[in-house]
Amino acid sequence: MLRFLTAGESHGPCLTVIVEGLPAGLAVDVEAIDRDLARRQGGYGRGGRMKIERDKVDILGGVLCDKTTGAPLSLRIENRDWANWRQRWAAGDLPRLSVPRPGHADYAGMVKYGLDDARPILERASARETAARVAVGALAKLLLAEFGVAVGSVVAEIGGVAAQVPDLAWPELWALAEASDVRCPDEAAAIGMRQAIDAAREAGDSLGGVFVVAATGAPVGLGSHVQWDRRLDARLAQAVMSIPAVKGVEIGPAFENARRPGTQVHDEFERVGATRRVARASNRAGGIEGGMTNGEPVVVRAAMKPIPTTVTPLRSVDLATGEEAATQYQRSDVCAVPAASVVGEAMVAWVLADALVEKLGGDSVEEMKR
Amino acid sequence: MLRFLTAGESHGPCLTVIVEGLPAGLAVDVEAIDRDLARRQGGYGRGGRMKIERDKVDILGGVLCDKTTGAPLSLRIENRDWANWRQRWAAGDLPRLSVPRPGHADYAGMVKYGLDDARPILERASARETAARVAVGALAKLLLAEFGVAVGSVVAEIGGVAAQVPDLAWPELWALAEASDVRCPDEAAAIGMRQAIDAAREAGDSLGGVFVVAATGAPVGLGSHVQWDRRLDARLAQAVMSIPAVKGVEIGPAFENARRPGTQVHDEFERVGATRRVARASNRAGGIEGGMTNGEPVVVRAAMKPIPTTVTPLRSVDLATGEEAATQYQRSDVCAVPAASVVGEAMVAWVLADALVEKLGGDSVEEMKR
Amino acid sequence: MLRFLTAGESHGPCLTVIVEGLPAGLAVDVEAIDRDLARRQGGYGRGGRMKIERDKVDILGGVLCDKTTGAPLSLRIENRDWANWRQRWAAGDLPRLSVPRPGHADYAGMVKYGLDDARPILERASARETAARVAVGALAKLLLAEFGVAVGSVVAEIGGVAAQVPDLAWPELWALAEASDVRCPDEAAAIGMRQAIDAAREAGDSLGGVFVVAATGAPVGLGSHVQWDRRLDARLAQAVMSIPAVKGVEIGPAFENARRPGTQVHDEFERVGATRRVARASNRAGGIEGGMTNGEPVVVRAAMKPIPTTVTPLRSVDLATGEEAATQYQRSDVCAVPAASVVGEAMVAWVLADALVEKLGGDSVEEMKR
Amino acid sequence: MLRFLTAGESHGPCLTVIVEGLPAGLAVDVEAIDRDLARRQGGYGRGGRMKIERDKVDILGGVLCDKTTGAPLSLRIENRDWANWRQRWAAGDLPRLSVPRPGHADYAGMVKYGLDDARPILERASARETAARVAVGALAKLLLAEFGVAVGSVVAEIGGVAAQVPDLAWPELWALAEASDVRCPDEAAAIGMRQAIDAAREAGDSLGGVFVVAATGAPVGLGSHVQWDRRLDARLAQAVMSIPAVKGVEIGPAFENARRPGTQVHDEFERVGATRRVARASNRAGGIEGGMTNGEPVVVRAAMKPIPTTVTPLRSVDLATGEEAATQYQRSDVCAVPAASVVGEAMVAWVLADALVEKLGGDSVEEMKR
Repeated sequence: MLRFLTAGESHGPCLTVIVEGLPAGLAVDVEAIDRDLARRQGGYGRGGRMKIERDKVDILGGVLCDKTTGAPLSLRIENRDWANWRQRWAAGDLPRLSVPRPGHADYAGMVKYGLDDARPILERASARETAARVAVGALAKLLLAEFGVAVGSVVAEIGGVAAQVPDLAWPELWALAEASDVRCPDEAAAIGMRQAIDAAREAGDSLGGVFVVAATGAPVGLGSHVQWDRRLDARLAQAVMSIPAVKGVEIGPAFENARRPGTQVHDEFERVGATRRVARASNRAGGIEGGMTNGEPVVVRAAMKPIPTTVTPLRSVDLATGEEAATQYQRSDVCAVPAASVVGEAMVAWVLADALVEKLGGDSVEEMKR
Repeated sequence: MLRFLTAGESHGPCLTVIVEGLPAGLAVDVEAIDRDLARRQGGYGRGGRMKIERDKVDILGGVLCDKTTGAPLSLRIENRDWANWRQRWAAGDLPRLSVPRPGHADYAGMVKYGLDDARPILERASARETAARVAVGALAKLLLAEFGVAVGSVVAEIGGVAAQVPDLAWPELWALAEASDVRCPDEAAAIGMRQAIDAAREAGDSLGGVFVVAATGAPVGLGSHVQWDRRLDARLAQAVMSIPAVKGVEIGPAFENARRPGTQVHDEFERVGATRRVARASNRAGGIEGGMTNGEPVVVRAAMKPIPTTVTPLRSVDLATGEEAATQYQRSDVCAVPAASVVGEAMVAWVLADALVEKLGGDSVEEMKR
Repeated sequence: MLRFLTAGESHGPCLTVIVEGLPAGLAVDVEAIDRDLARRQGGYGRGGRMKIERDKVDILGGVLCDKTTGAPLSLRIENRDWANWRQRWAAGDLPRLSVPRPGHADYAGMVKYGLDDARPILERASARETAARVAVGALAKLLLAEFGVAVGSVVAEIGGVAAQVPDLAWPELWALAEASDVRCPDEAAAIGMRQAIDAAREAGDSLGGVFVVAATGAPVGLGSHVQWDRRLDARLAQAVMSIPAVKGVEIGPAFENARRPGTQVHDEFERVGATRRVARASNRAGGIEGGMTNGEPVVVRAAMKPIPTTVTPLRSVDLATGEEAATQYQRSDVCAVPAASVVGEAMVAWVLADALVEKLGGDSVEEMKR
Repeated sequence: MLRFLTAGESHGPCLTVIVEGLPAGLAVDVEAIDRDLARRQGGYGRGGRMKIERDKVDILGGVLCDKTTGAPLSLRIENRDWANWRQRWAAGDLPRLSVPRPGHADYAGMVKYGLDDARPILERASARETAARVAVGALAKLLLAEFGVAVGSVVAEIGGVAAQVPDLAWPELWALAEASDVRCPDEAAAIGMRQAIDAAREAGDSLGGVFVVAATGAPVGLGSHVQWDRRLDARLAQAVMSIPAVKGVEIGPAFENARRPGTQVHDEFERVGATRRVARASNRAGGIEGGMTNGEPVVVRAAMKPIPTTVTPLRSVDLATGEEAATQYQRSDVCAVPAASVVGEAMVAWVLADALVEKLGGDSVEEMKR
């Protein structure tokens, strides 16, 4: 069983993460991790902080001679912004925030933890935490790659501008997405997306959208139908829904499938030759049947709400005084869907890596391959 | 921490479930459990088996003098159909199925478990297992009710026929749904849904749809933003996605929110008077911000695919011979969205009960209330 | 990951257990399970109830054609005594017990669960629950046997009478123990043990002792040193300490080792020929180094306290009145060490089976063997 | 549920740990943590490394204004020795060890992870990792202290020299232990222990012993009898047995109790006045009955084997060549029982803190106190 815990605040010294259960003998490509960290930081519509941070991972444990040893990995990502906050942090003199912002963790967190200041909540609820997850996901991808599994993502919709995703294999779509600053493989839609982002910035507003994570090459039979909490679709849903601002998850085009009759939804089998080899002409199931991978690409679609920090103030209440108050703007992005899609890759990769380790057993990559 | 495990096959003697972690002193209303079991079995569009089964729960452990003792509960639901299967079961002479049905667990399960017969797979992957979950959910509801939390559901869409959900409080919507054999609070849409089901039956086809589970009265601060796997939206997503045939989950109208600008999505705060009490005019967040309940009703929407068993055969391959073959019809429903919505209630109730026990601590209901 | 939950009360209708995670294709030998159930019920010094119960397992789920399917197993063991209790149980008219018995769960359980009657506590805290664990352990043994791992036990001490365990291989010791009604491979000591039991019965007292569970054939490298909760010795300690009345656990002769210098404790390596094959002349480590199996037999020793129910009354307090009171005798055994040693086998087998499934992966026995 | 994961190698840059689930509002006394780190490093019989390291904790996350926020804590303890290893580490040029040392993780780890060099194993299996646990335990103690629970330890035996533990309350025994460089409250025995350590050093040998961790003030009802894995004695056994070199665990004097009749073992109740308040004249149960705390001090005794690194070589085999070889000495201690007793405190404190959080619920210390 793989496990990871992240820690760290948005304006604290660093993010840290411990990753438990990776097999020994996995070559750890630090540049691949940093590349994913950079991918998370890019994208049209990001705010000022992304200019400050250039995330790099430090490996503090679990790797000897560039390979995992079976021991837990300890990773650290420094917050460059820390230099600007260090003194206030040490003095315990951080800017207070007693007017909770709609859509943020502020209000629920203050009530839950008995605080009259949202600072401790927003420091941890910030999407900055997802950098740590991207590092974890990059490790998961390295493991999956040893077994022919690849994970990538595209942006399908921003602010209501929907892409016509071309009918190409996933790796080709991913390549198109990598070349786009909105991670969209449909260039016409990408233009519209950028315009929508510009308009939202102009209006002091923010945008959400839809991204699609896919995984190719996963073997048949990851996950299981036998117990509710072993279903892979359910685990994927938990993992992707845990990304801040993601509020909807589909395996394949689920909401659209729900409107169609069964004969138009279920992916018929075709013979490939050998007894157990079958093929499908369609993949409306998103690669999962009965809570298990079925050999087709795993396709997870996620709906991200607009970023809850808007320049245009929203109505709120000052919890310190009980008076009505307008939200105050905190530095933020206008749209983070491209970034979130990279985090989505990480979470999907993590769930698949966990299921693969469970399926193959083994304490080293070599043993897993036997 | 609450835990449960279910067991049992669709045509075996019974379903069983063990529920761990419920506090002592909870009055166990067996009729309330049976009522939910009956609700799951009803609905326009169910097939022949529902005429055979009249599910009743037997409590085999964990309850003394009609109250929980803190010990695990052991529940059994007999399969009445068992009388028809007992002999074949004992003889190990169950009908074989070597032609996997698209949309079912058949193919992935056969490959995963190394079988050339899908019988062991479909026996466990059958939606019959959800009866056990409904019993668990009924227990969770009883616990939640002690703390003023209510859980109910409505059907919002079947086969593309969408309801106009009236602007009423949830309990009123639930009452309308209870009075409808498609669990739809919009009578005009309900008529269309029944027509769609009739047409699908006529055509040898099947239908899916969308249901909405809501919970009222949950305190602020269930779940947490501090670690990915403690977010309540993520846990709800896992729980609801684990229902067979559910392939999409939203917290509130997430996919619609993803198309709107932030100022139209985030639910502004209004003053109620006392310092910490606030209200909202809208609930587009579905009752969860930052992975925590925010005091508004928790709203989970789920997309269910059409039932994968269709009278109209689908193309497949006989895995025993490698020859192309058409699927053979197994007794099934045309549409099970109303039933699934009851299972959805169970899973949402379970997640909330677990979070409530974590939040309040306590080994007895009385202690939890202190 | 293997999981199991047990449920059921001592005088309720039955014990039930659900076992999750066993691979498919395991031949389930019901007679082997019943044999272990009978072994738990035997032994010199057992009380009246053992004459009533003849435990048999019913399998209610997870097995088709005598083989596991990968689905959870559901087991039931009826309480024959139930016939005598059924009416009082249904009427909620069970004998109350408000005078907690020293050494029992009574007092702590009453306070924890807010009760003034220990009945709900003792019904679940009773050692009868261990019958369910023995059934689980028998399944684990069946799985281990497929991989050449055998688990057995002997009694080393009862009431201060210590065996001289002969210098034989474990299977030979086990055979001697099976032939002894105190499960002791040293016949001279066995005589003394029986005398001690007789004397204790005479005196209205009870006895404890020490048993030793061993497992042969476990591969090197089950468990891991890399994280505290993955150490196999720690998991074994938890599992064996969880047996009611067991209060001490050693891996090998740990307390004796603690008195010796290192050069007399650590098991030196000998060459066997091939590079990686080594042997040891001694096994003072009890088969575990660094929290991992090392290829030698796993040896777990457990100290069981005397049964806390004694005919001779002990001083207590009536929690209903606050008055001093003497404990009242409840039907019980004088000595249950031989029975507990069978439960010990079950728990050790469970931990090893779990570690083996983790190490080998695989969803079926066949796949695990590849 | 509390969770923690540690990471880091013995000669790597640092140890790190993430601690999840602590309530908000706990005052984090860094000096208290450092004090426990120093206590672990002390003790008669420690080797050269303890002169190099002066452990200090850095808090990298989860604390604002000296209080926990509910977010996970991230701790780092630098390895001062790292300065001496940094270059070799970066170059991947660490001293190889292909001759496994009896009693160490070397052999099992090499086989498990498929290595011909034990370096990656010993780096993680080293007792240095326990510094991270001590930091975790210090946090747990701070939480427990808020609820009147104190945890301490004494050394009862070293190299066969057993203390006569005076009949004093635990806090007094702890004070005596703190004043002793072998953590022994019996000064006469302490002299013998030091002599034994000197003699062992002289002889190129090593010693083990027995330590006793106790906790006072724990409320009745932590843990539960209702399910095997919820028993507190079992969880304590796992936690303490997970300390490197600990191979035996008792709750109270369990092995001695096993030799006595029940009437001499079970702790009789005495009236204190109020209905539910009772007292005991003895505590042979070690504070736990039925897997739950019973209001008496929790007493856990642990047997530690002699340190497996001895100056006197032991017979082994070079796994790289298959040739017989003698072990080579690695810098180590002669006796680490006093250090291990501090780690024992940490693990006991952790288990109790976890159980307390489960019992009391609550997201902040203030809420837990209501």
